[in-house]
Amino acid sequence: MTKESFSKEYLPYVMSEITNVLEKNASERTLFESMSYSLEAGGKRLRPLLLLATIDFFGSTLSKGHFQIAGALEMIHTYSLIHDDLPAMDNDELRRGKPTNHIVYGEALAILAGDGLLTEALHLVAISDLSSTQKVWLMTELTKASGSKGMIGGQVGDIEGEKTILTLEELQAVHEKKTGALIHFAVEAGCYLTNQPEAIMAEMMTYADNFGVAFQIKDDLLDVLGDEAEIGKHTGMDEALNKSTYTSLLGVRGAQEALSEHYNKAICALNTVKHQLGKTEEITILEELIQTLMG
Amino acid sequence: MTKESFSKEYLPYVMSEITNVLEKNASERTLFESMSYSLEAGGKRLRPLLLLATIDFFGSTLSKGHFQIAGALEMIHTYSLIHDDLPAMDNDELRRGKPTNHIVYGEALAILAGDGLLTEALHLVAISDLSSTQKVWLMTELTKASGSKGMIGGQVGDIEGEKTILTLEELQAVHEKKTGALIHFAVEAGCYLTNQPEAIMAEMMTYADNFGVAFQIKDDLLDVLGDEAEIGKHTGMDEALNKSTYTSLLGVRGAQEALSEHYNKAICALNTVKHQLGKTEEITILEELIQTLMG
Repeated sequence: MTKESFSKEYLPYVMSEITNVLEKNASERTLFESMSYSLEAGGKRLRPLLLLATIDFFGSTLSKGHFQIAGALEMIHTYSLIHDDLPAMDNDELRRGKPTNHIVYGEALAILAGDGLLTEALHLVAISDLSSTQKVWLMTELTKASGSKGMIGGQVGDIEGEKTILTLEELQAVHEKKTGALIHFAVEAGCYLTNQPEAIMAEMMTYADNFGVAFQIKDDLLDVLGDEAEIGKHTGMDEALNKSTYTSLLGVRGAQEALSEHYNKAICALNTVKHQLGKTEEITILEELIQTLMG
Repeated sequence: MTKESFSKEYLPYVMSEITNVLEKNASERTLFESMSYSLEAGGKRLRPLLLLATIDFFGSTLSKGHFQIAGALEMIHTYSLIHDDLPAMDNDELRRGKPTNHIVYGEALAILAGDGLLTEALHLVAISDLSSTQKVWLMTELTKASGSKGMIGGQVGDIEGEKTILTLEELQAVHEKKTGALIHFAVEAGCYLTNQPEAIMAEMMTYADNFGVAFQIKDDLLDVLGDEAEIGKHTGMDEALNKSTYTSLLGVRGAQEALSEHYNKAICALNTVKHQLGKTEEITILEELIQTLMG
């Protein structure tokens, strides 16, 4: 199955789990609309796809519980975008080619829509079609990945980094948390839900963590080289804000090389696992997903 | 034991569980400070006390798991205050006699401190010293109480209510969610953790829900009659904003009568349970807690 047919087949289940939980708890129409607006604004659905493709990679059949956890991941990612775009944060008016949440619904509702998506995401994990032990594991790791040691800590580091020039190590530490932690969780949860042994889990985490860094480098490169119409947001923002990025620290050429390096490490780890599973010929969805960064 | 000695004995355990989880995950110093600032700004710790006093009321020994859930409740309450105080929401500069979070740390960090407290609160439930079944129940109910059908929905209703004059029923529906849902959860969780039968649970919920309404009426009365220095925030805000409140709809006298009525209903439900438990003579902490609203 290709990434495209995989997405077409399974993402609708993920989106329907999200809609179900939001509708079930929708007491205020405007809040529901504001949350739905940002969820439906598109995006690559990278985190749910990584989770589902990992489970599929290990030969397990995808089930309702998996779609619910994938949905929770996308909801948490979406809440973080709504809050990051706020005037007090990155002050972005455009996201995926559409006006950002606070431009459409106002700041108050955008803050509350973010709070709501985070809360409902964790509610979805709690009521998901999995065992109590699995739910507690997922809750523990998902709140760690998206909390102050993970995504939120990374966003604080990112904002504070604007006041100073970061070293490459500091920049990497920020992004490991800000974008890396949820990508790490997506693959880790896929391994956990299919009971992978530690050695395989370790290779998969090498794949995930190099994916995370490659993803951020690509994002920085797009901000310099990308076409606004194509990527759906304003470019040149990092330079305007004097932000430390992979391109500001390594130059465009250096950043492209670093991207290749992390791509190779990820593919290499994946090949090790493929070899162990005896599926060396096949191009997997996990490979296709990271290849999208090289286009 | 009196409410005062009960608080002195047990609240330090609650606060220490909160500090533990925040410190364990503190990767950014400023984020940790901003979260701690609002937690340490005082407050009555009503929600943790309600949970612990309910467990104590049924004769159970308080344990680490109980203090962790009480801590999670206080963290969620605190995050909601930080976000409610933001310029885009109620725009409050003073809370409990101290500058609000965004005045001290700026808006960006205040938004992230709120997000962080919510996430770490649910992390604390996930890692708490309770069974997986209990944790999943608590996660499900706590995210429901604080989500879009509960606290967040109530805050949206409150903001939207500013544009119009609410009926008493509409006002009550807003506050049932905004402040009532977490109070309801506190007592409900205390009953759940001590395995109360349905009939007792129902009486306790009557206590909790009337407590919630009485609490909001008292809050509205304080905004009209209270002394700024004493209550630590600006008064007269509701009238200035033309907000529908119990006093604007019922007058001061009518609001005082409604407060008495809900107080009586709560006490009556509590007496029914006391009678069944054979502790009719004793003044309990749950009684003392609601009596503070009548002072």
